Amino acid sequence: MAEKGVKLFGMSLSPMALRVEWALKLKGVEYEYVDEDLLHKSEELLRYNPVTKKIPVLVHDGKPMAESLVIIEYVDEVWKDGYPIMPKDPYERAQARFWAKFVEDKINPAIYAVFCTTGEQQQKALQEAQESFMTLEVALKSKKFFGGEMIGFVDIVAGWLPYWLRIIEEIVGVSIVNENIQPLINEWFDNFLELDLVKGSLPPKDKIYAINKARREQLLA
Amino acid sequence: MAEKGVKLFGMSLSPMALRVEWALKLKGVEYEYVDEDLLHKSEELLRYNPVTKKIPVLVHDGKPMAESLVIIEYVDEVWKDGYPIMPKDPYERAQARFWAKFVEDKINPAIYAVFCTTGEQQQKALQEAQESFMTLEVALKSKKFFGGEMIGFVDIVAGWLPYWLRIIEEIVGVSIVNENIQPLINEWFDNFLELDLVKGSLPPKDKIYAINKARREQLLA
Repeated sequence: MAEKGVKLFGMSLSPMALRVEWALKLKGVEYEYVDEDLLHKSEELLRYNPVTKKIPVLVHDGKPMAESLVIIEYVDEVWKDGYPIMPKDPYERAQARFWAKFVEDKINPAIYAVFCTTGEQQQKALQEAQESFMTLEVALKSKKFFGGEMIGFVDIVAGWLPYWLRIIEEIVGVSIVNENIQPLINEWFDNFLELDLVKGSLPPKDKIYAINKARREQLLA
Repeated sequence: MAEKGVKLFGMSLSPMALRVEWALKLKGVEYEYVDEDLLHKSEELLRYNPVTKKIPVLVHDGKPMAESLVIIEYVDEVWKDGYPIMPKDPYERAQARFWAKFVEDKINPAIYAVFCTTGEQQQKALQEAQESFMTLEVALKSKKFFGGEMIGFVDIVAGWLPYWLRIIEEIVGVSIVNENIQPLINEWFDNFLELDLVKGSLPPKDKIYAINKARREQLLA
């Protein structure tokens, strides 16, 4: 007999697990949170996600699934009468999926490239990262959020950036996003961080700073 | 006034554009096909997809969209009374999206790694590629297609493999998928190629062979 309810396997400093928490909270879904030690993953996690072995994993009534974007769409579809995460219109939904993919495939690796380089290499990576954010402004247009007046799929997927990127910029010692280059994204950073949903959910800055500083030193060693 | 109808910007040897053609044909949607010269992309393509500048691009009643997986989901949602590409059940839909992502993120790069290496490096890449296909067997279980008795989202996304991989294996001189290592995937290759939808849609083997042989030589030069 499959167990009932919702269980989320995450890690408190993981922005990818936080995405799923935001989606569940927007829907008002009660869930049990299992904080994984990624150096000693639980047998349960490995049984539920034998393919990638990564968090986040959501288990709903005994049925496991992985990949944060996949989970968010599932949450939106199952609790479909709650807060609308995806737009109703198929074309807008396609646009949301396109920009979510852009964040995953372009923005995230571009930041990583700045994070693990120095000197000239870093200057090149920095320029590319800034250009990617300038492109992302196109999706924002003059809206408060990617989703319009309220946050939606793209906001949740990009939502780790306003908090994490500022910490990364501090560690690395460069400014990737600022009001001069990407004024709209810069404003979206502020708008997103002011949300009650977000404010109360962010892990301590000092821990993220310490873990990423150590990681950068290791990458450059 | 936006133009009416469906227009697909592709390239006759591109498997990613072919995915979208399969989706449109399954739905019985009439469309105009624009064959792009990727070395001299049309102004129309660049206007419709300024972000990635890549094919395929679908334009529906004047509204453009890019990324093959995004387009396929759009086609399934807009022509929702036609052939069902995505499963109806949200959990099965999440599983389909997970495996489609697995093909994109694991299988495709693993094949590329075999394609652009030789010797020891290639042996390592070959083993990883074979393991990825063994994992993909999990999604197939004992079904004829990933979608069950009929093809669905994952079949369309992985559908370039049965034809293209055999040509790549011939060029590279190794066997990645075979009945001894991945018997179910190997059988799926045959089942997929026997479909009328697929048979009539494949570009000439000699052209794919020539273009990929030249590409490999360039990569190894």
